[in-house]
Amino acid sequence: MSRNIYLESTPLHEALSKWLQRLDSGLVMRPLSGEKIKVTDSLGRVTAQAVTADISSPFYHSSAMDGYAVRFADTFGATERNPKRLKTGEEAVYVDTGDPIPDRFNAVIMIEDVNIIKAKSKEQSSEATATEYIEILSPATPWQHVRVIGEDIVATELILPENQKIRPVDIGAMLAGGHIDVSVRRKPKVVIIPTGTEIVEPGSDLKKGDIIEYNSRILGGLVCEWGGEPVRFRIIPDNLEELKKAILEAYDMGDLIVINAGASAGSEDFTAKAIKDLGEIALHGVNIKPGKPVILGWVKEKPVLGIPGYPVSAYITFNLFAKPLLYKRQGIEMEEPEILRAKMSRQAASVIGQEEFLRVKVGKVGDNFIATPVTRGAGALMSLVRADGFVRIPAMSEGLGAGAEVDIELMRSKSEIESTIVCIGSHDNALDLLANILKKRFPGFSLSSAHVGSMGGLMALKRGEAHMAGTHLLHEETGEYNVPFIKRLLTGRKIILMNLVYREQGLIVPKGNPKDIKGFKDLTRKDVIFVNRQSGAGTRLLTDKCLKDIGIKQGDVRGYEREEYTHMGVASAVLTGIADTGLAILASARALDLDFIPVAKERYDLAIPHEFIETEMLRRLIKIIQEDSEFKNIVTALGGYDVSDMGKVIYEG
Amino acid sequence: MSRNIYLESTPLHEALSKWLQRLDSGLVMRPLSGEKIKVTDSLGRVTAQAVTADISSPFYHSSAMDGYAVRFADTFGATERNPKRLKTGEEAVYVDTGDPIPDRFNAVIMIEDVNIIKAKSKEQSSEATATEYIEILSPATPWQHVRVIGEDIVATELILPENQKIRPVDIGAMLAGGHIDVSVRRKPKVVIIPTGTEIVEPGSDLKKGDIIEYNSRILGGLVCEWGGEPVRFRIIPDNLEELKKAILEAYDMGDLIVINAGASAGSEDFTAKAIKDLGEIALHGVNIKPGKPVILGWVKEKPVLGIPGYPVSAYITFNLFAKPLLYKRQGIEMEEPEILRAKMSRQAASVIGQEEFLRVKVGKVGDNFIATPVTRGAGALMSLVRADGFVRIPAMSEGLGAGAEVDIELMRSKSEIESTIVCIGSHDNALDLLANILKKRFPGFSLSSAHVGSMGGLMALKRGEAHMAGTHLLHEETGEYNVPFIKRLLTGRKIILMNLVYREQGLIVPKGNPKDIKGFKDLTRKDVIFVNRQSGAGTRLLTDKCLKDIGIKQGDVRGYEREEYTHMGVASAVLTGIADTGLAILASARALDLDFIPVAKERYDLAIPHEFIETEMLRRLIKIIQEDSEFKNIVTALGGYDVSDMGKVIYEG
Repeated sequence: MSRNIYLESTPLHEALSKWLQRLDSGLVMRPLSGEKIKVTDSLGRVTAQAVTADISSPFYHSSAMDGYAVRFADTFGATERNPKRLKTGEEAVYVDTGDPIPDRFNAVIMIEDVNIIKAKSKEQSSEATATEYIEILSPATPWQHVRVIGEDIVATELILPENQKIRPVDIGAMLAGGHIDVSVRRKPKVVIIPTGTEIVEPGSDLKKGDIIEYNSRILGGLVCEWGGEPVRFRIIPDNLEELKKAILEAYDMGDLIVINAGASAGSEDFTAKAIKDLGEIALHGVNIKPGKPVILGWVKEKPVLGIPGYPVSAYITFNLFAKPLLYKRQGIEMEEPEILRAKMSRQAASVIGQEEFLRVKVGKVGDNFIATPVTRGAGALMSLVRADGFVRIPAMSEGLGAGAEVDIELMRSKSEIESTIVCIGSHDNALDLLANILKKRFPGFSLSSAHVGSMGGLMALKRGEAHMAGTHLLHEETGEYNVPFIKRLLTGRKIILMNLVYREQGLIVPKGNPKDIKGFKDLTRKDVIFVNRQSGAGTRLLTDKCLKDIGIKQGDVRGYEREEYTHMGVASAVLTGIADTGLAILASARALDLDFIPVAKERYDLAIPHEFIETEMLRRLIKIIQEDSEFKNIVTALGGYDVSDMGKVIYEG
Repeated sequence: MSRNIYLESTPLHEALSKWLQRLDSGLVMRPLSGEKIKVTDSLGRVTAQAVTADISSPFYHSSAMDGYAVRFADTFGATERNPKRLKTGEEAVYVDTGDPIPDRFNAVIMIEDVNIIKAKSKEQSSEATATEYIEILSPATPWQHVRVIGEDIVATELILPENQKIRPVDIGAMLAGGHIDVSVRRKPKVVIIPTGTEIVEPGSDLKKGDIIEYNSRILGGLVCEWGGEPVRFRIIPDNLEELKKAILEAYDMGDLIVINAGASAGSEDFTAKAIKDLGEIALHGVNIKPGKPVILGWVKEKPVLGIPGYPVSAYITFNLFAKPLLYKRQGIEMEEPEILRAKMSRQAASVIGQEEFLRVKVGKVGDNFIATPVTRGAGALMSLVRADGFVRIPAMSEGLGAGAEVDIELMRSKSEIESTIVCIGSHDNALDLLANILKKRFPGFSLSSAHVGSMGGLMALKRGEAHMAGTHLLHEETGEYNVPFIKRLLTGRKIILMNLVYREQGLIVPKGNPKDIKGFKDLTRKDVIFVNRQSGAGTRLLTDKCLKDIGIKQGDVRGYEREEYTHMGVASAVLTGIADTGLAILASARALDLDFIPVAKERYDLAIPHEFIETEMLRRLIKIIQEDSEFKNIVTALGGYDVSDMGKVIYEG
């Protein structure tokens, strides 16, 4: 096993400036050459040279009104008392808006301002052959109601400068200025080489050890969004010679070569070696998390990027090191990400010495933007899908305390964030359905839920970090759900408690129940491993009550200390053999086709502070909960739910 | 001439709500059906149903590190003093990051944390056949360094809700979740029918009266930007029956039919009649300016929009009435335009009774955003190209006073506006070249110039509305340029005066000088019509000085009262026969291939308040003026310029 674990750990700003300098000295920071395309196909492209008007617009004097073209000198002296007559066809000619003004005329009188008069001269015997005149009551001024040549665009005038991204109106102006072709920057091409013996194409028959290749599609999508053209190379196995051949083959296919992955220093990581053999490595290893093992390299006259394999690392490093190049090559400036100032809802520790890119969800609760970190693993693609933005934690920081003010680089617009209902608390599968139905009915609104348990949800309401909390806390003494806890934890706050569902909790076991688990008493068996929920979860309280009821000590349950944060997490642990059983709702067992031993029926409510009830987004959501039959039906179809009180206000105070 | 001048004048909010109601009752406000496409082609499309994971990711337990897979139970009790040995291949198996964990194992120990040891048993005679062990110094915890099944995505989990616009990371997540196809909303199709007998295709041989058809390309570009698909119909002449046939033919080609133009009430405006004959008109005439004669109609089961012909009217009404429909059909929300609060640099009167959409340029000077109206004609396409945004002047307002605070709906980003140098003052063709070179060298910066004359420019500096002013004011008494005016008008301000060029001013006459004009003395001739510059322009002062020098009264010059705002405006008036001559710079005569009678050489300077000199954008610009040889060369090539003092500081005080 040959390993080279000595990656550099260059600070990000140093790495970036080194990379940009290397690109600059390699002459690839200059805009690409132009290519001639049809103006009508140029939307979103970037001009490669200034566009000046070939012809004026309008290119002839034209009427700006429906009316009569006249010589203004002929109209001198016309008044209401002394109207003036002009002979049509000779001294006045009818023109529609846009019609050219005949050469000898230099003003237009609006149709509304003339009287048309037929007058017979001595020689004319009938009305039909009578001469027609227009009668006017005031003089015209020179060039009135005339769009003179070049009024909009004068020939030779600058229509668009070089390096201008072309918008719909720019297309119109170029056509009006007499152009049918335009020289635009060639789109920068990025060749993306996916590597890895274990990598397979989406849609393949999967076997253990296979990894579906999707990073190249994420990177390709980003290239498109940045105005470039992605070229996806075939998958290359972990083999130094094949990788080198691939780089040389890719060389003529694009302006930047990206190898994903093999950028680390493992026994099968050949990217650095391949680049070094063919060219040079400017830098290997940047002091960021995730994304450390990035390679900035150079082969002959082209930049070659080695991008780490974990999707979050790939996304971050590609944004940092490829995006500036793509913009420079098009001759345009990168747009600054929208920055939002927010407060951290909870602490996020960070390792000193590495700059961390923390993904966060953001919600606006009352007047405050609240940021909550999502899963931090570099392999957690869904953390990117769900994130609203990034917080950068500087290398020399130990992390962020709860309540810390942070600047978030947004991945969603601020207005989307403002239209998001923040639900923190206990997880229930019905919440996912509710989120989807809300988005379906009212695309402008979203429901975002964070799963921290019932107790955590009520505490979030208390701290003003959520619009609502899902809760199913059983009060042991009174046997009452939720209300005693709200009274105690949210003293003085006006809270509405609304039922969402009653649901069945039970022990989830593998299909066919191979270990023949019948109930909580089996949890003391040596061959049974349990999976628990986190403290503060209603399900955890239920577990503890069940154990206490039959006199089992927590220490006697194998796996009691392994905590999951959702019902699906528990079901998944059972499905995959991490545990033999765990307490969760029927819907999660159904979802993964597992068996279920009923333990209790419980009430799952939503607690909503009174001040949010009348916001438009909450009103929409409550309307769905109370009235939407499709929602009721799909929740019922999940199994284990009783929706008879759905939307009923249980408590208000 | 059949005319129907009785358009309605419905207030905009009423028209909009009437239109949206009509669309709603016509069932076309509902999202379009889905179509199945490849996930890899789905960037920017909108999900037509929720996407849930078909498979988990990872779908097998895999190693998160390079190291050894072990059973955690086997590692109990390992310490530094009492290391534990595990036999490789049996109790420990080497795994790379991403490799599946063999079934019997449930933890991974990092390669860095093991010692590899070869030990010969009695039967083994050589090193080569020695048994290999790993030695560990601490126990493993269950599932450490293992990416368990579903760690990123659990099968059945919601990946994307319905009505979600697909981003690069979403493509990755769908592929990871086992999808190769996705159901997305069909793109709403908009059929755009250009009408008008005078309309010709771009690139046609043009003759007087022809109008190049470009509106359909602007509207089509907007449709693309909004996520729809434009279908451009062939050009239809002004003929009722042909238009009706076209509408029926277009009927099956799209979800919305747009007729441009003929929406007004002129003799050749058939759009309203055609829609009425085939269906109904919900509304004809909205109380906005520009854009009044819009038609909201309905044929069988489809909406039909009649859009006015002037490009600015077309742009505004299409945005107002087509955009909401296109978004609804995709199941997504329109993005709110970015709003910027700014101060009007000058007054903009508006007609009471009509809501006006005023186009403005915006600049950030010091801490203030300053808005300046651009040309207001509905035919002025370049006013849209140049505008940074719109100000809506309510129907019941007489307009905006200078200094009024306004909300601007931005067409450019705020950061682009903040990176724009505002130059107000005298016009010179070299400024256009400077703007273009700046954008070429530094795509992040722009130079925007407004032409209000030298005096107007200095006043704009005084009011804090510009970063610099172009000026060529000749002080009659001292014969000195600019400095006496700066001292008088900008008392107490620190101003740097930098030379841009010396340039030749002269009388511009048509090619061949048909009226044989030799100098200012010819301006009193009855057959000579002059075109003037506006008061406050340096060229106007020069004109007045020349007239005075030879004792001609202003009243004796025909055309003295017709004012143009730029040199090109004057040249254009001469080219097109509006005037016989006017005073302007040689470059403008050259540009339009006109003849030129030299009158004076003058100094054209840039006045820059000291506080802006050190901003990055001004530093860049000044560097170009002082050092860029390409800029010097292209200015010289214009003709009539002396660049020997270009960039020289003439005065500082």
